[in-house]
Amino acid sequence: MGKSLQFPERVTICEVAPRDGFQSISEFIPTANKVKIIRALAQTGISSLEISSFVHPRAIPQLKDAEEVVRTVIDELEGVDVRALVPNLRGTERAVGAGVKKVKTMLSATDSHSLSNANATVADAQQKQTPIFDYAAANNIEVMGSISVAFGCPFEGVVPVERLVEIVGRYDSMGVREISLADTTGMAHPKQVYDTLAVLQEVFPHIAYSMHFHNTRGMALANTLAALEQGVTLYDSSIAGLGGCPYAPGATGNVATEDLAHMLTEMGIATGTNLNRLIEVAKEVRDLISVPGDSYMLKAGPSSCLHEDAPSGQEKVEE
Amino acid sequence: MGKSLQFPERVTICEVAPRDGFQSISEFIPTANKVKIIRALAQTGISSLEISSFVHPRAIPQLKDAEEVVRTVIDELEGVDVRALVPNLRGTERAVGAGVKKVKTMLSATDSHSLSNANATVADAQQKQTPIFDYAAANNIEVMGSISVAFGCPFEGVVPVERLVEIVGRYDSMGVREISLADTTGMAHPKQVYDTLAVLQEVFPHIAYSMHFHNTRGMALANTLAALEQGVTLYDSSIAGLGGCPYAPGATGNVATEDLAHMLTEMGIATGTNLNRLIEVAKEVRDLISVPGDSYMLKAGPSSCLHEDAPSGQEKVEE
Repeated sequence: MGKSLQFPERVTICEVAPRDGFQSISEFIPTANKVKIIRALAQTGISSLEISSFVHPRAIPQLKDAEEVVRTVIDELEGVDVRALVPNLRGTERAVGAGVKKVKTMLSATDSHSLSNANATVADAQQKQTPIFDYAAANNIEVMGSISVAFGCPFEGVVPVERLVEIVGRYDSMGVREISLADTTGMAHPKQVYDTLAVLQEVFPHIAYSMHFHNTRGMALANTLAALEQGVTLYDSSIAGLGGCPYAPGATGNVATEDLAHMLTEMGIATGTNLNRLIEVAKEVRDLISVPGDSYMLKAGPSSCLHEDAPSGQEKVEE
Repeated sequence: MGKSLQFPERVTICEVAPRDGFQSISEFIPTANKVKIIRALAQTGISSLEISSFVHPRAIPQLKDAEEVVRTVIDELEGVDVRALVPNLRGTERAVGAGVKKVKTMLSATDSHSLSNANATVADAQQKQTPIFDYAAANNIEVMGSISVAFGCPFEGVVPVERLVEIVGRYDSMGVREISLADTTGMAHPKQVYDTLAVLQEVFPHIAYSMHFHNTRGMALANTLAALEQGVTLYDSSIAGLGGCPYAPGATGNVATEDLAHMLTEMGIATGTNLNRLIEVAKEVRDLISVPGDSYMLKAGPSSCLHEDAPSGQEKVEE
């Protein structure tokens, strides 16, 4: 066994609550509150932000105000790597029209999930993305790609790494250089994350991978550790753990930004974020949105917050 | 970065709910229910069990029936490595009288916690343990040692590894060969766990370490991964995540046995336990005890439990 863990000195956290979180909550969050949360997040030192999704308002009415949100705040986000999710050319035009310079496209790792989520097989879905790439190239817009259910599919189970190699290869041929591996339903485990990254980084060493872990089965931070050990520097998370899992109602969704930042900070890995400020924003989010978030920091606070005395009523002889 | 994570092929999970869980809940769990839960746990394949704590009934009235519980079930636990926590000679005599063959003694890593928990400095607390060791030696009883707040103390913060070397050295000199490193308040982080184990295993290579992680800050499974990478094969956990954290009311305590077993099983690490049976027992425990447990398995189920169809009302274009 080695004498020290190997991991990067600095990583980038991409805050996805304004997209993944807001979309997962059935209530419509008023535009003013969305803007308020994004502005608060911008004060935490977050350097990357997934600001919204430009899908058809009938598909996700929770984000029907995407243009208004982006237009209102985009000029205040200087220095932040802002991206928006886009499902098609129309969404891309809307996003770019609102001021977005980077878009994220999506494919599923399995046909079952792709048919359920996008009503098309993976191959068909990818074919349909061509106009997005053409438009982006003509307008100097960066495109990154994501792969949903990259580690496990709720219908098909474990995703073979060969499947990911194929899909990353599709993105690669379109010129994509940043790919999000999304553990949509929290089925990834650390060995799988480590082994998958070993293969992908060997086959496509010129591509940057970003990890989108859900904590549905409690493994998000363990999976983060495995990815760190493979040198990955890009991680998605959601403030206050906003969002859930459609396949397990009541279960946890995205790993909470404050929990991720806390572990990284404790490990001495720089994130550029202010942990205390993140926890304050998480509390504001919890107060603004009726669906409560779920994070360890909200319940227990950071390790560095010490007690002066033993709590009253404390059990003795604890371990 | 390496091509594969290194970890043991097989580990032992020690179920601690009958001690750490039952003691953390303010209600008195009826003896019959304690016995029922222990019997159910014995059917899960658990090979190690912390059955109770023989402290003074005034200190922890929740466990005042320790003798009755042990006497009732001990003969049914053949093949299970049963141990009980003992604070002093009197507790050791009671435990052994009830049929226990292995006891666990406790020291804190810091004087602040030791004074708060055992009303003595660490040195004084260790001095007081001499009669336990003498009695155990005379009666062929195995003694293991534990170190509370081994990674972080709620009063003093990060525990320097030198402090652990000193306390493990004390135990070593008493002939202890198994030491539990308890992250009592969930302050450990993976780098710390890995680095600490590197030092302890180098200085005391003849001692077996068992990890007692609390999930108070969500890092229990990440810390488990770090310990696995140091070759550790002994892990404590509590069914249904029973127990809490006295320093953070409402926060999570011990990592849930079913969550730990799930991750290990997914990683291909043998535990000898039946995961589905563990989840069934966790549900029984949740139904028997008014303080609900907290586990990802109770909320989301194992990764291997697939869906036949997309859930109704599922959001589209999720990642």
